[in-house]
Amino acid sequence: MKTFCRSLHGLALGTLLIAGQLVTVQGQTEAQKANANRTLSVGYILFPGFEPLDVFGPLEMIFSMSYYMNMTLATIAETVGPVSARPPLHYMAPNEPPMDLSYMINPQVVATHTFETAPKLDILLVPGGTGNVALEQKNDTKVEDFVRERYPELEYLLSVCTGAITLARSGVLEGRRATSNKGAWAQTATHGKNVTWVPSARWVVDGNVWTSSGVAAGMDMAYAFLRELYGDSPLNTLMSNVEYAPHTDASWDPFSVVHNVPGANKTRSLVDCVGPAGFTE
Amino acid sequence: MKTFCRSLHGLALGTLLIAGQLVTVQGQTEAQKANANRTLSVGYILFPGFEPLDVFGPLEMIFSMSYYMNMTLATIAETVGPVSARPPLHYMAPNEPPMDLSYMINPQVVATHTFETAPKLDILLVPGGTGNVALEQKNDTKVEDFVRERYPELEYLLSVCTGAITLARSGVLEGRRATSNKGAWAQTATHGKNVTWVPSARWVVDGNVWTSSGVAAGMDMAYAFLRELYGDSPLNTLMSNVEYAPHTDASWDPFSVVHNVPGANKTRSLVDCVGPAGFTE
Repeated sequence: MKTFCRSLHGLALGTLLIAGQLVTVQGQTEAQKANANRTLSVGYILFPGFEPLDVFGPLEMIFSMSYYMNMTLATIAETVGPVSARPPLHYMAPNEPPMDLSYMINPQVVATHTFETAPKLDILLVPGGTGNVALEQKNDTKVEDFVRERYPELEYLLSVCTGAITLARSGVLEGRRATSNKGAWAQTATHGKNVTWVPSARWVVDGNVWTSSGVAAGMDMAYAFLRELYGDSPLNTLMSNVEYAPHTDASWDPFSVVHNVPGANKTRSLVDCVGPAGFTE
Repeated sequence: MKTFCRSLHGLALGTLLIAGQLVTVQGQTEAQKANANRTLSVGYILFPGFEPLDVFGPLEMIFSMSYYMNMTLATIAETVGPVSARPPLHYMAPNEPPMDLSYMINPQVVATHTFETAPKLDILLVPGGTGNVALEQKNDTKVEDFVRERYPELEYLLSVCTGAITLARSGVLEGRRATSNKGAWAQTATHGKNVTWVPSARWVVDGNVWTSSGVAAGMDMAYAFLRELYGDSPLNTLMSNVEYAPHTDASWDPFSVVHNVPGANKTRSLVDCVGPAGFTE
């Protein structure tokens, strides 16, 4: 709530110099303190056939964070208005009939801006989903063109799941490490020039580009990302209200083993012990 | 995909009698086999100020399941069209000024039906969120009236987070066990007549009513619910594609301890080891 937010901003916090960074007594760096005092412009790409949780996993946490911090949200698509999560017609393999999934249920989300009218953005999030495949097959490059054009103005670019395909095709992954959904690995990892696709990773950070593994992995990436942006407070309070116990180890990736991704780390346990963030027993 | 679905339906599976239930060789009960062969009508309540992940956590899994199984979806609100997740004006405590959270970001979802036009439903899901509080303060009973009226036709009624308040106020929790968000426990657990509010529970099942703890807990409830409906196959495949490692122990609830809920089980560990569903090392 704003009251808390104002109190947080208003506190005359002492500072410490730890590992060359100014850190407040609450463990907040100077950069995190500065983030708490400005308005961040967040953009979210939508396209027909987006994966619902790719959008709403990270968005739940960003939405909750906007209770404490100043943010704006633009949901961006080819046209404003409803965008369907139902997969459009696409092909799964050569010489096979088109996949008509119009029988699937159809959650719809509202786009507030087009690629032409989107405001200046500090943070851009790109979801994945079957719609990505359909766009590529139609040679529709609007999403990747938008990512390429806007990348220079962004402070952070994030993708969830096969959203990494869009990032690869836009060119911003060139020379970078990235990851994506492990169930769609064979298809995903063919994209992009000079991309080091990391086979076992819940998420990967390379510079200001964050890519996560499949769908639910976006929530763990979002936790790590918001922690970098703002520190532990009020993030851990928020996580306890959302009742999500995040995986905080970026190298935990049982799904790379389950899906038998080439190069997957099979020496690690498939299980991982998680509990509330910021609390220890 | 339908091909898989048809193959699944078409298999001449042998059956076994285990513990009095007919079970297929794949571990599917006769009831689960019957569910795989019919169309389920799913309804989702939306209201201004719904919590985004309360809706899209379980919905991601239901959406993914609709790839394999026949389902319809109705998103139901007071009016069709966009419904905002941004909290409406409400009061948090007596004698305090109203909470104006209009500065928060505003994800919007499309309602396809009104309370009057909603189709016959087999399954109804009720999310929580600050909007619940606002409805109660305005004496707006439309959502709980809809739940009360439709309950006799439902096979299953599910709530996430403070959606349990709506269920309590509708009367369907009378004589039942239920749970809700642990961060809003003091306020939530005052609702309903003769409700046994369970202080430590990720989710609670009482008859055909499923209630989950806060926000992200809805995903674990959804996994358990879909497992009851359809069995492990194709659910576990779906979970590995969504890359979510569900908590499968309904009594795991570290957030009841974190939020110091009266009666919470403090003897249990806050952490829980989770890995991919259906896989063992």
